[in-house]
Amino acid sequence: MKIIEGGVASAQGFEAAGVEAAVKYQNRKDMAMVYSTVPCRAAGVFTSNIVKAAPVRWDQEIVSHSPAVQAVVVNTGIANAATGAQGYEYCRRTAERAAQTLGIPADTVLVASTGVIGSQLPIDRILAGVEKLAQAKTHSDAAGTDAAQAIMTTDTVYKQAAVQIEIAGRTVTVGGMCKGSGMIHPNMGTMLGFITTDIAISRALLQEALSEDVTDTFNMVSVDGDTSTNDTLVVLANGLAGNPEITERNSDYDTFREALHYIDETLAKKMAGDGEGATALFETRVIHAATKQDARILSRSVVSSNLCKAAIYGHDANFGRFLCALGYAGVAFDPERVELSFANDEKSILIYRDGMAADYSEEEASQILASPEVRVVVDMHMGDAEASAWGCDLSYDYVKINADYRS
Amino acid sequence: MKIIEGGVASAQGFEAAGVEAAVKYQNRKDMAMVYSTVPCRAAGVFTSNIVKAAPVRWDQEIVSHSPAVQAVVVNTGIANAATGAQGYEYCRRTAERAAQTLGIPADTVLVASTGVIGSQLPIDRILAGVEKLAQAKTHSDAAGTDAAQAIMTTDTVYKQAAVQIEIAGRTVTVGGMCKGSGMIHPNMGTMLGFITTDIAISRALLQEALSEDVTDTFNMVSVDGDTSTNDTLVVLANGLAGNPEITERNSDYDTFREALHYIDETLAKKMAGDGEGATALFETRVIHAATKQDARILSRSVVSSNLCKAAIYGHDANFGRFLCALGYAGVAFDPERVELSFANDEKSILIYRDGMAADYSEEEASQILASPEVRVVVDMHMGDAEASAWGCDLSYDYVKINADYRS
Repeated sequence: MKIIEGGVASAQGFEAAGVEAAVKYQNRKDMAMVYSTVPCRAAGVFTSNIVKAAPVRWDQEIVSHSPAVQAVVVNTGIANAATGAQGYEYCRRTAERAAQTLGIPADTVLVASTGVIGSQLPIDRILAGVEKLAQAKTHSDAAGTDAAQAIMTTDTVYKQAAVQIEIAGRTVTVGGMCKGSGMIHPNMGTMLGFITTDIAISRALLQEALSEDVTDTFNMVSVDGDTSTNDTLVVLANGLAGNPEITERNSDYDTFREALHYIDETLAKKMAGDGEGATALFETRVIHAATKQDARILSRSVVSSNLCKAAIYGHDANFGRFLCALGYAGVAFDPERVELSFANDEKSILIYRDGMAADYSEEEASQILASPEVRVVVDMHMGDAEASAWGCDLSYDYVKINADYRS
Repeated sequence: MKIIEGGVASAQGFEAAGVEAAVKYQNRKDMAMVYSTVPCRAAGVFTSNIVKAAPVRWDQEIVSHSPAVQAVVVNTGIANAATGAQGYEYCRRTAERAAQTLGIPADTVLVASTGVIGSQLPIDRILAGVEKLAQAKTHSDAAGTDAAQAIMTTDTVYKQAAVQIEIAGRTVTVGGMCKGSGMIHPNMGTMLGFITTDIAISRALLQEALSEDVTDTFNMVSVDGDTSTNDTLVVLANGLAGNPEITERNSDYDTFREALHYIDETLAKKMAGDGEGATALFETRVIHAATKQDARILSRSVVSSNLCKAAIYGHDANFGRFLCALGYAGVAFDPERVELSFANDEKSILIYRDGMAADYSEEEASQILASPEVRVVVDMHMGDAEASAWGCDLSYDYVKINADYRS
């Protein structure tokens, strides 16, 4: 697997664009398009929230029932959620205009929105934006970056990744971009992710690969415990790499899964580290748990705890909070057997064992917690399962951003 | 039911004290005692966290197996959690010293702690504190207030309440005090609550009354989603009112339940409104839900949402966040049928209905959200059940308090 520069416009046949459409704010890119020169197989995972935004309902319908997908149109600023029948009608009009301009069927166009809930889209500006995007789209790294920038809301950095693998002598590229901060617990700014690849793979396996991989990547990210109405992660595969189509779980499939996992995990960690107001990426790694599911639940409980997050922000080795968050996760264990360590890229120190504080230096612990990437390692001493979850610290700026979000 | 001044030292035969013991900080009351001149029936509810502090384990043992309880000793500053065998031994020594000084058996003494996890108690200062408390305790409103002040940590106000009822011609008093901010989702500062009454009631019914009432009061409070290692709520009944002992669910029992409910709800709301960094009490009332349990889950999901809490802090009528928090609660409903209103003591305005924003004034909505007590009313249009949950807004100060907690 070779890590390369690029994102959604890196795989063969994929084009992208990001333009200013003044949906809600002036002078920033706020609409993006991803387009494939040939029809794609598509797979998707969507928010579990009962209150689903109109574009989520539109996309679920297309990913489930449409034979192919060829384009995605994204806007920021307004989420098109809690917008009734009119909101859904605006999705249709957006897709129809894109279809007309691109010369493809309307049921091959996905739409995605992120921003304030409860306002209607300024449909004329959206439609004008679609036409600008169709004109601007190109197959280039710069176009992928434009798109990645155009889907940002409170994100402070754009997020993309790309890799290449060899399958049956053909070079296959997988690239992706995302914005926001989580899938199970996404920031209200919403998690949107788009992955493109030129691999030839059956639709069923594409969906399986995505659904399985999300469990240990995007679903292990938490910024604030709020699951958005708009969360969407879509992968498009157009087959232009020319590999023999993957139709079963063979070694080619495994190779693709590795590449997809790299893209998913890389984007997921970028989201966590760029959580609203975050000053650090906060990883919790649970090892020697009884089951994989226990390890996931425990690690996610810790990265989701406001008190643990505030302790990271304060560089305060208040280990009781981490133990406490494990204790209310809903998984049975013996607190006397758990070991807790704090680590960064350079070192790891043992903080808690045998039911009480280990003999550690507060100063050293505090230094570790001041790292840009902080890792809490929890050894359950119960079995062989492990999992990681990613979040960020809780800062004044999180409150500031969310108290003032609409202004 | 007559609301009176007072707290834990109001019922007949109950004495209280609060003293400075320098457990962790100087120049503030940090130890409290509640004492009954005669043995009491006791009931309790304790944290569901697997990581239970030593005093919680001590108290669970006594409430379950000891024939009577006669005193409670509380310290703040150090939680005596994650302290191993030594921590439990310190509970025993605290109870034994109290027993010796008060001339009662050690297994009639409850202990409770709140503060930093992972440090050992300064046992000599604790034991000296116990002796000061035993000397200082009196039966007076002022003593109850001293105790309520002595159990505060990050609380900004002390919290107590008392009522009187008539049962079979005898005046029965129920009084209580608490600190902290929640039971299901308590602030790490821990929720501790102590209720005293001179009613004569069987132990089984006392426990039933407490367990049932907690479901709709303390368990409906959330400050930050973190369930502490130390949460404890205890009720002591010494029978000195002289009413015929309540041994079945008759009208006397109902009268007592009303009084207990008033104390529980009043203390629960005081905790919510005094959540760390809070500027407002944030109540969510769900009406016309399909089941009582649905109503509880939905209302608690809203008051627990960081994004809703930040919107209250920002006085921002960003109703989509409230709808979103309902949507991920795990209860099935039709978003198109839900109605959402914002209210304070003076007025109520409709914000959302028919799947979209109602026609309301942003300015008026913002004014309501700027009230010291903000109520969000959610009409599910599904059935007859209703429930309220209480929380507070999420402010800069929450982060400040918790980033710097140990310093």
